[in-house]
Amino acid sequence: MDEIKYLNTISSPSDIRNYSDEQLNELCSEIRHVMIDTVSKNGGHLASNLGAVELTIAIHKCFDSPKDKIVWDVGHQIYTHKLLTGRYSQFSTLRQKDGISGFSRPDESEHDTFYSGHSSVSISSAYGIASANKIKGNNNYTVAVIGDGSLTGGLVYEALNNAGREKSRLVIILNDNNMSISQNVGSVARYLAVTRSKKRYVRMKARIEKVLSKIPFVGIKLANAFFKLKTNIKNLIYKSTMFEDMGIRYMGPIDGHNIKQMCEAIETAKSLDVPVLLHVNTIKGKGYDFAEKSPAVYHGISKFDINTGEAKSTGATFCGEFGELMCKMAGEDKRICLITAAMTLGTGLERFSKNFGNRFFDVGIAEEHAVTFASGLSKVGMIPVFAVYSTFLQRCYDQIVHDGALQRQRMVLAIDRAGFVGDDGETHNGLYDVSFLSSIPNVIIYSPATFDEMKVDFGNAFYRDEGVVAVRYPRGGELSIPDGYTPGLGLFDIYGEKCGTVIVTYGRVFGEACRALEILKNSGIKVCILKLNRIRPIPEEALDFALGAENIFFFEEGVKSGGIGEKLAAELLENGYKGRYSLTAVNDEFVKQATISELYDKYGLSAEKIAQKIKAGFSEGE
Amino acid sequence: MDEIKYLNTISSPSDIRNYSDEQLNELCSEIRHVMIDTVSKNGGHLASNLGAVELTIAIHKCFDSPKDKIVWDVGHQIYTHKLLTGRYSQFSTLRQKDGISGFSRPDESEHDTFYSGHSSVSISSAYGIASANKIKGNNNYTVAVIGDGSLTGGLVYEALNNAGREKSRLVIILNDNNMSISQNVGSVARYLAVTRSKKRYVRMKARIEKVLSKIPFVGIKLANAFFKLKTNIKNLIYKSTMFEDMGIRYMGPIDGHNIKQMCEAIETAKSLDVPVLLHVNTIKGKGYDFAEKSPAVYHGISKFDINTGEAKSTGATFCGEFGELMCKMAGEDKRICLITAAMTLGTGLERFSKNFGNRFFDVGIAEEHAVTFASGLSKVGMIPVFAVYSTFLQRCYDQIVHDGALQRQRMVLAIDRAGFVGDDGETHNGLYDVSFLSSIPNVIIYSPATFDEMKVDFGNAFYRDEGVVAVRYPRGGELSIPDGYTPGLGLFDIYGEKCGTVIVTYGRVFGEACRALEILKNSGIKVCILKLNRIRPIPEEALDFALGAENIFFFEEGVKSGGIGEKLAAELLENGYKGRYSLTAVNDEFVKQATISELYDKYGLSAEKIAQKIKAGFSEGE
Repeated sequence: MDEIKYLNTISSPSDIRNYSDEQLNELCSEIRHVMIDTVSKNGGHLASNLGAVELTIAIHKCFDSPKDKIVWDVGHQIYTHKLLTGRYSQFSTLRQKDGISGFSRPDESEHDTFYSGHSSVSISSAYGIASANKIKGNNNYTVAVIGDGSLTGGLVYEALNNAGREKSRLVIILNDNNMSISQNVGSVARYLAVTRSKKRYVRMKARIEKVLSKIPFVGIKLANAFFKLKTNIKNLIYKSTMFEDMGIRYMGPIDGHNIKQMCEAIETAKSLDVPVLLHVNTIKGKGYDFAEKSPAVYHGISKFDINTGEAKSTGATFCGEFGELMCKMAGEDKRICLITAAMTLGTGLERFSKNFGNRFFDVGIAEEHAVTFASGLSKVGMIPVFAVYSTFLQRCYDQIVHDGALQRQRMVLAIDRAGFVGDDGETHNGLYDVSFLSSIPNVIIYSPATFDEMKVDFGNAFYRDEGVVAVRYPRGGELSIPDGYTPGLGLFDIYGEKCGTVIVTYGRVFGEACRALEILKNSGIKVCILKLNRIRPIPEEALDFALGAENIFFFEEGVKSGGIGEKLAAELLENGYKGRYSLTAVNDEFVKQATISELYDKYGLSAEKIAQKIKAGFSEGE
Repeated sequence: MDEIKYLNTISSPSDIRNYSDEQLNELCSEIRHVMIDTVSKNGGHLASNLGAVELTIAIHKCFDSPKDKIVWDVGHQIYTHKLLTGRYSQFSTLRQKDGISGFSRPDESEHDTFYSGHSSVSISSAYGIASANKIKGNNNYTVAVIGDGSLTGGLVYEALNNAGREKSRLVIILNDNNMSISQNVGSVARYLAVTRSKKRYVRMKARIEKVLSKIPFVGIKLANAFFKLKTNIKNLIYKSTMFEDMGIRYMGPIDGHNIKQMCEAIETAKSLDVPVLLHVNTIKGKGYDFAEKSPAVYHGISKFDINTGEAKSTGATFCGEFGELMCKMAGEDKRICLITAAMTLGTGLERFSKNFGNRFFDVGIAEEHAVTFASGLSKVGMIPVFAVYSTFLQRCYDQIVHDGALQRQRMVLAIDRAGFVGDDGETHNGLYDVSFLSSIPNVIIYSPATFDEMKVDFGNAFYRDEGVVAVRYPRGGELSIPDGYTPGLGLFDIYGEKCGTVIVTYGRVFGEACRALEILKNSGIKVCILKLNRIRPIPEEALDFALGAENIFFFEEGVKSGGIGEKLAAELLENGYKGRYSLTAVNDEFVKQATISELYDKYGLSAEKIAQKIKAGFSEGE
């Protein structure tokens, strides 16, 4: 690649509106080059962004952002948008502390409509804008850009069901890269694309209907086979029906790498004054061989080598250990079933999905269904395990209450990415699960610090505890633990010689606490560590131990409000504790992107900050 | 009505399998009589249950419960099922303490598959059972019975999207009483019903398609009008397409008051070995004039007079006051919009919906969409208010995090039925909202004790506070407050002469606390009451006041875990509080049906129990 020619001159989308076709082509190459280069260094969402380059250019050519509001679903396809809206010069800071985010962030640019990072929300919020515009008599357009994967979430259906009821200037662009809902588009449908986008699609549909109707009826016996055939044919032609049934005008599919065709279609959509869904076909990973061939691997990726396409290796992770453990346990117990919400790779279940296909369920981005479906499996004696990132577990709170805990049946939540997630930033942190799960009666929560503890916890969840049991573990691996010390595998453990000053913590912060203990020892301050493994309910003996302390310092990688630190405080106070109590946790703010160690430092959870806090507490107390 | 002839002889569904048509007809009358009589005395869900009498009989004739599992969505249509499964003799205790529940409860009968009370979950959980059966090689059927209203919830779509992927013995019965999704069934569709259920529906569909295809194409100009016309016709005939697109065989519509027709259709469905959706038309309120004419009013109703159909009147309620307040404020401020999730009546918004139609949005049973849609309205300067029962707010936790609090825009949650709800029981209590909402950064929560406070709180929410603000209030009216005392309208208030023993509480428990104060005064124990109005964040001055106390007794109508009592304890302990602390709240259990006063007594929140606790605390402390 030669040097940058266009991006350094583009400060707003209007700058590209008069580009020639050739210039646009060169711009696309330049954008792809910058993306691949940056993601190889910083990690990020690559394949989806490579597929949306031309689409984004077409959108910015045809709509007048920020007057017209563009709402990016999730944000996995937003890099081109960032590069076209004045953020090229900062693009090298992508996903880094104080750098630009990998997702949509209104505080970065007036062209970013919402903070976004979760799937399937864009049509609802865009329809909200369109409705408000209507009330106010404002004629601007609202655009939702949504991937086909996001269509598996029920919120999309709720939104379409509402948006289809009345006229509004809402344009929904379905960026279909055929990755999550596969085979929903066939060759006849593709053939119809351009024709339909030019307003002739009604005629075409009528013709095809006529052909269909001539297929003879051949008796009851063949009814079943026929039903299938006709449904399949109908699906090819009528892929539109579902949207049209809901009152949304359907147009497409369009070639998502042909800017000119897309612009024609968008202009038609704009002229209709009703909600329109524009179906665009793109190739995930377009323009980078490795990503085109393995789009799932390159969906979200860590740093990698551009020439070999290989990710820089990381050591053993909780995620990987979990996947192996499930394979082992499911091999021994035929009741164990695994459920994922479109995160087979992310939750470490690739091998499980191959080895135990009939007990593996990828439900799409449908966390609510995952939990309620699990209650059905459990009802007839299976042991369902829903493997899910902490941040996405937020989507099924009611189901955990109503279809989980209330049913008094076994259901296991394997919560990955619990705690800080680092570079994905504030939409993705797993800081709330402890708080919202513990509001639900009888839910048991484990938060292991080591792989060994995690294994024991799943054993408890499967064979000892009852009802809903959560085992939560962080992204990445174990933090280092002092040589020669093997944490006990019970519900809690005490590290260091018992004394009046107690650090209480759980999960991977334990590693930091151990280092803090050494630092403090060198300063002549003696502390011991109460490490919880089962964090809810707090084990009674652990509470008794804490009641005997004089100074308690709780360090929690999660929100303060509703966290274990508050619960322990209440238990202590109700039981007459008279000592000092200090609680360090994330207090009432959304945590931005940075590395884990930067975040530990910022939120007082690093060994140094832990030691500092305790030293300060002592000088204050004297 | 003559005396009971059948119900007292039915102990299991198998008892009705050989009834003659005449006997079944008489049974239906008898069931309706018992339902109307009982609901007029106990309150309950009447109209939906009256509509499902014949349907339930057909289901129990054709399926072999409990081997075949029947899953009732919500449970608004379950009374006939209860009467046919050995619960006639207890039916007079419906919705009363220690009596039978108005919803599905496995602890009552092996024929009740799940605890249920929330909408749109049945297909997911039934599909879970069907999947487990398949894994285990079990040939039984699983039946989901779901109303058309429940179809507006996104979870249904997630479930269909999954269930349609493979063969299973899953029969979905859509009980369509045309009340929530109106006009989705027309005369042509009805005409097709019986034919289709007899496996001839493919032929019929082909014929109609042929007719359709002959409608001439008349040029681009008329394309829009044509699109509409064809879509409408197609909807009539092809109401099936949406389900069939998702791989679910569609049959119907069937007359839901014709047992014979339904049985034929069900037997056909059973023979197919694929997921089938059987579309049944019923009349909501069937057999009781008042309910047929006003099905919405008789959907869920309190005690009423059978002859006049009039509900026994209640006094002023928070719900009613809220509705009037919104009308007044929206009249003065054109930015205020109200959103409800299929609860216009229940949340007191009937008058608002008529007077401010263009700023009123009933989104269906789609709480997730409600919140995300609100974020769109807010984005362009509106003030969206989502009026919702506490228990249903549980469904949009992630949306409140991701599309609410994170966006830093104004959004108001008007939370009705906060606290105990009484006779609807454990699926409906509003005990979790304080805990799960306060886990979200920056969410402000008010819990007024009086109508006047509620008005001030909404004023704050609209014009003073920022971001997501919740105002939560209970079912029913204010509790009595001592004569001559007008609670202050600030963020908190102190009642009684300041002293070392402080009762802390919020919401309507304040009325009980006032009475407790009098009881204690008569016993020579002096207390004062710290009543919180804004409960999160706890006002600093209120915290300071509490820090000066010697004995604190917190009484909370909500879960302990993550509640305000725990938060106050942590704040106190962190700030060096050395006094005593007692916290009374609902601890780790689901609360069953009973009257509010029975529940206050049981959970220690009645004046008498409050006084008792404080007296005991003193004798213990000495």
